[in-house]
Amino acid sequence: MAGEAPTLDLTVDGAQLTEDLVNIESVSGEERVIADAVETALRGLPHLEVQRFGHTVVARTHQGRAERAVIAGHLDTVPVNDNLPARRDATRLHGLGSCDMKGGVAVALRIAAGLPETNRDLTFLFYDCEEVEAERNGLHLLSRSDPALLEADFAILMEPSDGIVEAGCQGSLRVDVTTRGERAHSARSWMGRNAIHAAGEVLARLTAYEPRRPVIDGLEYHEGLNAVFVSGGVAGNVLPDRCTVSVNHRFAPDRSVAEAETHVREVFDGFEVELRDAAPAAMPGLSVPAAAAFVEAVGGAVKPKFGWTDVARFSALGIPAVNFGPGDPHLAHKQDEFVPLDQVVSVERALRTWLGEDGVG
Amino acid sequence: MAGEAPTLDLTVDGAQLTEDLVNIESVSGEERVIADAVETALRGLPHLEVQRFGHTVVARTHQGRAERAVIAGHLDTVPVNDNLPARRDATRLHGLGSCDMKGGVAVALRIAAGLPETNRDLTFLFYDCEEVEAERNGLHLLSRSDPALLEADFAILMEPSDGIVEAGCQGSLRVDVTTRGERAHSARSWMGRNAIHAAGEVLARLTAYEPRRPVIDGLEYHEGLNAVFVSGGVAGNVLPDRCTVSVNHRFAPDRSVAEAETHVREVFDGFEVELRDAAPAAMPGLSVPAAAAFVEAVGGAVKPKFGWTDVARFSALGIPAVNFGPGDPHLAHKQDEFVPLDQVVSVERALRTWLGEDGVG
Repeated sequence: MAGEAPTLDLTVDGAQLTEDLVNIESVSGEERVIADAVETALRGLPHLEVQRFGHTVVARTHQGRAERAVIAGHLDTVPVNDNLPARRDATRLHGLGSCDMKGGVAVALRIAAGLPETNRDLTFLFYDCEEVEAERNGLHLLSRSDPALLEADFAILMEPSDGIVEAGCQGSLRVDVTTRGERAHSARSWMGRNAIHAAGEVLARLTAYEPRRPVIDGLEYHEGLNAVFVSGGVAGNVLPDRCTVSVNHRFAPDRSVAEAETHVREVFDGFEVELRDAAPAAMPGLSVPAAAAFVEAVGGAVKPKFGWTDVARFSALGIPAVNFGPGDPHLAHKQDEFVPLDQVVSVERALRTWLGEDGVG
Repeated sequence: MAGEAPTLDLTVDGAQLTEDLVNIESVSGEERVIADAVETALRGLPHLEVQRFGHTVVARTHQGRAERAVIAGHLDTVPVNDNLPARRDATRLHGLGSCDMKGGVAVALRIAAGLPETNRDLTFLFYDCEEVEAERNGLHLLSRSDPALLEADFAILMEPSDGIVEAGCQGSLRVDVTTRGERAHSARSWMGRNAIHAAGEVLARLTAYEPRRPVIDGLEYHEGLNAVFVSGGVAGNVLPDRCTVSVNHRFAPDRSVAEAETHVREVFDGFEVELRDAAPAAMPGLSVPAAAAFVEAVGGAVKPKFGWTDVARFSALGIPAVNFGPGDPHLAHKQDEFVPLDQVVSVERALRTWLGEDGVG
């Protein structure tokens, strides 16, 4: 029946809970059933204040701690690709969303249910539409409608990171670099100017480009400047009067979007450059006490995050954030994604340690 | 009534005959009515043997001359573009096909009707579907089905050439030059190889290319090597693994298609090159007596033809051929095309002189 959500038992082990979550189909835009199940399960816990916004569920402790941390995960998956229901073998849980990111959501739910008392107050966020356009992203919508709910000293996004802390993230912007020419019949090419030929210099600058590898908070980032599209041409017998190279710049978190844009315009000095979209980077913020304590608690291993993730939304709000979850990030969106069950266990153990399970405070 | 063709009076002056032809709509594929009119008019002339092939009309004299020349024109036009019926002012005839090429067809029909005795035997060809794909071209079809009908010492294609002889034509070929790379997420670009960047060297070679300008039979041709299309790209966050530059080479008539292809492959040595299409050049053939006599008769002015035309079909059959007709070739296919009436007169006069009107032989 459409209105009846499956029941989620948060006392089962992490592997079983991941399997149960995978078996609730939740392609982006269709998260109502899984959000209902999560909301219902959390409302049964007296130490949490639970609120619902669309298909986003927020659950907060109010222990009066000096610090507050966010633990967040998205509930949606990319489209079904003949990879449901879940299938478990001795070491892995296979199926849509197992890696990205129901393993992480299972850990977060187990922490929410199993640790009524922690050394930091916690805000759990389970949100929708992370896999689609930014305007539908539940975390984005919440940051606009109820930013106070996101207030915290630190945030953990439980995206797959192989169980190692990935700190900050690089920003991304895309520009179109356009060259202009003058049309002419290709049989009389000296009557015109070829815009595609003119783009050769654009590609030469890209080939010669030396990306920065700045070290920030001890982490080496690695920038990039790459053509991702090129197009030009009018007809098979016409000199083209326009050629556009779309260039994606990935920039380290020591630069703002504006600084990165200025840099790209310098690289293509003399050419027509139009900014098409941009997303800011996120500083790793590892010097913040809550972050430093987290890294220490999880064993000290930290990698820089190269790809853009929702951690940048927290960073934009002034909240240091890291990715930390079970699963190989390279398996995300693949038909045969899986999550190693030992990572589900080890990530949960690390979080419990950080949250003072062995002696709160 | 569908079966009834308008009557063409071949004794009216060239301007009037051009106007009458323009007013018989004959977009490519719909040449039945105009071909019927031309056939009927020519069948009334006892000095001509008339044959019909589809919508192509062949009319030949049999005077027993030592030489035979072809005079050819296509009957079709590009699509109607609010430019019918014909409109005449003091110096020009405006309307669809006036320039390309019913002015030339009018001259040919007046020669066919008005000069029963000439110093060379003549073969008149009025054919269909020149403005569309080569497989439908009436001249092409006739060269396959009845090549003997095209046998001649010389051919004149009455395409617009501003009333000046345009000799030979350059050939044309197109290759795709493809670069390969390896996909990677653009946030970790060092994991892949960017195929668009690799195309920079292809464009650099095109920019540095110095086209030949060979002189053949006293005419300076002008080659060209131009990118006409470029495309590459997978997604906004993916390093592209393939980029294709389509290159059009226009080559002078001292090179065969095979030689031109070899040359292009040398230019792009080290790259993947695929031949997509090719059309041979046509030698000007001005040293052939019939051609030399023609140039002399029309006053000696000759230009090289840069664009590809049906003269190449004659050249492929071993028949030297030139373009010679009234009208500015740059007006072809334009909505506001027109033909200067004085050129209709001067072109006819030149042909009459060459054909010995003032004393046959």
